[in-house]
Amino acid sequence: MCIGHKVRRNILLTIKYDGTDFCGWQRQPAAPTVQGELEKCLSILCDMPVELNGTSRTDAGVHALGQRAGFSGEFAIPVENIRKAANDMLPASIAVVDVCEMPEDFHARFDARGKKYIYRMNDSGEKDPFRRDYCYFVRRPLDTEAMIKAACYIKGKHDFACFQAAGGQERKTTVRTVTDLAVVRTGADIDIEITGDGFLYNMVRIIAGTLADVGQGRFRPEEVGDMIESRDRGRAGHTAPPQGLYLAEIYY
Amino acid sequence: MCIGHKVRRNILLTIKYDGTDFCGWQRQPAAPTVQGELEKCLSILCDMPVELNGTSRTDAGVHALGQRAGFSGEFAIPVENIRKAANDMLPASIAVVDVCEMPEDFHARFDARGKKYIYRMNDSGEKDPFRRDYCYFVRRPLDTEAMIKAACYIKGKHDFACFQAAGGQERKTTVRTVTDLAVVRTGADIDIEITGDGFLYNMVRIIAGTLADVGQGRFRPEEVGDMIESRDRGRAGHTAPPQGLYLAEIYY
Repeated sequence: MCIGHKVRRNILLTIKYDGTDFCGWQRQPAAPTVQGELEKCLSILCDMPVELNGTSRTDAGVHALGQRAGFSGEFAIPVENIRKAANDMLPASIAVVDVCEMPEDFHARFDARGKKYIYRMNDSGEKDPFRRDYCYFVRRPLDTEAMIKAACYIKGKHDFACFQAAGGQERKTTVRTVTDLAVVRTGADIDIEITGDGFLYNMVRIIAGTLADVGQGRFRPEEVGDMIESRDRGRAGHTAPPQGLYLAEIYY
Repeated sequence: MCIGHKVRRNILLTIKYDGTDFCGWQRQPAAPTVQGELEKCLSILCDMPVELNGTSRTDAGVHALGQRAGFSGEFAIPVENIRKAANDMLPASIAVVDVCEMPEDFHARFDARGKKYIYRMNDSGEKDPFRRDYCYFVRRPLDTEAMIKAACYIKGKHDFACFQAAGGQERKTTVRTVTDLAVVRTGADIDIEITGDGFLYNMVRIIAGTLADVGQGRFRPEEVGDMIESRDRGRAGHTAPPQGLYLAEIYY
């Protein structure tokens, strides 16, 4: 591939980031965002205005292990050079993990069939200065057996209106399918791993908060079934804070 | 112990902190420092002006796993309540790990017999957004065998003028004893664990930078002996960046 020869290409990026210092994924005129930083960098490398379509609009403070975003256009830089060049230019808090060329009709967001999030909590009761931005330190010990029972009511295809926060995009329906929901304890770390075909606004954080409430005895596991049936946000648990949330994977 | 009854006490704190957001340990009039945050909090809890004597003046961006600091005075709050109350008040980046009452003549700094620092590097060649503030990502693979050989020249009692940066406090002598210096690789993480009776200004970071230079072939291990003999800062390696450095332990 000769540099200088422009070719039309459709690109898919895999991105890892620490969301602490960003006002979320989505581009904003006067605030640092992950999309904003990436577009600035890619526009220089590709010598054209790059607009990314990201698969998930993560909120401020939310992290990503495997965010995906696409763009297309005519540019000269060889695809295999983009990753290193972008990583050298981008802030240390954003890493491009993979860059690959896709068929012309591929769309990073519309073609996504599902997503996996991980929500990390810790119930050690100890303050850990090094992890303050990377997990949710709950005050009381979590009964993970109760959380696992509660998770059974959430798994499957349901109307998840009770787990939707106000303020998101308009959605045609609040029915979603949670294909997998695991609660995994490793020492004092408790990971909630949730996979589904799509998630409503703040849905993962409200599910994480509700499971933390169950784990601390504020709800019985059985009540989670009633919550979902009620379609009432007021019946569900609290919204867990952003720093425990990781967008882990996008499935195509 | 009855609250409200003031007793004269001499206190030793053990403190853990993430140095990323602080302009170092030492109090400054208009900048956030670890000492400043602790003194503000303890002055409220003890209802008296608290001035801490810290054992080590860590620089901006340097972390601590076991910093020690002392203060004394007449105050009412029971010693066993200080830790929890302080942790509730302090920023999430500072944790008080232990609070203990010492004999009247104990001094946190003057009575310290030695210190242990850990300097963490990584030679994976991969960008890790989540560890950018917690280790030194070197560009080329490190030959740890060469680093271990070089460490032999540093261990022991020497005049370490070549490993001293300008700008520190005036010292009577630049002779120090490095009692232990280990280079430990775990996957792509390389920890330099260094214990000594005291360290000159930036000494640990210059030793870490010099060992990284050896590991990347810029010096032969034998040259480190000549460096030390020369007493010339210009002969030694670069100063490794602050974010890889952890004050690990103080020995009494």
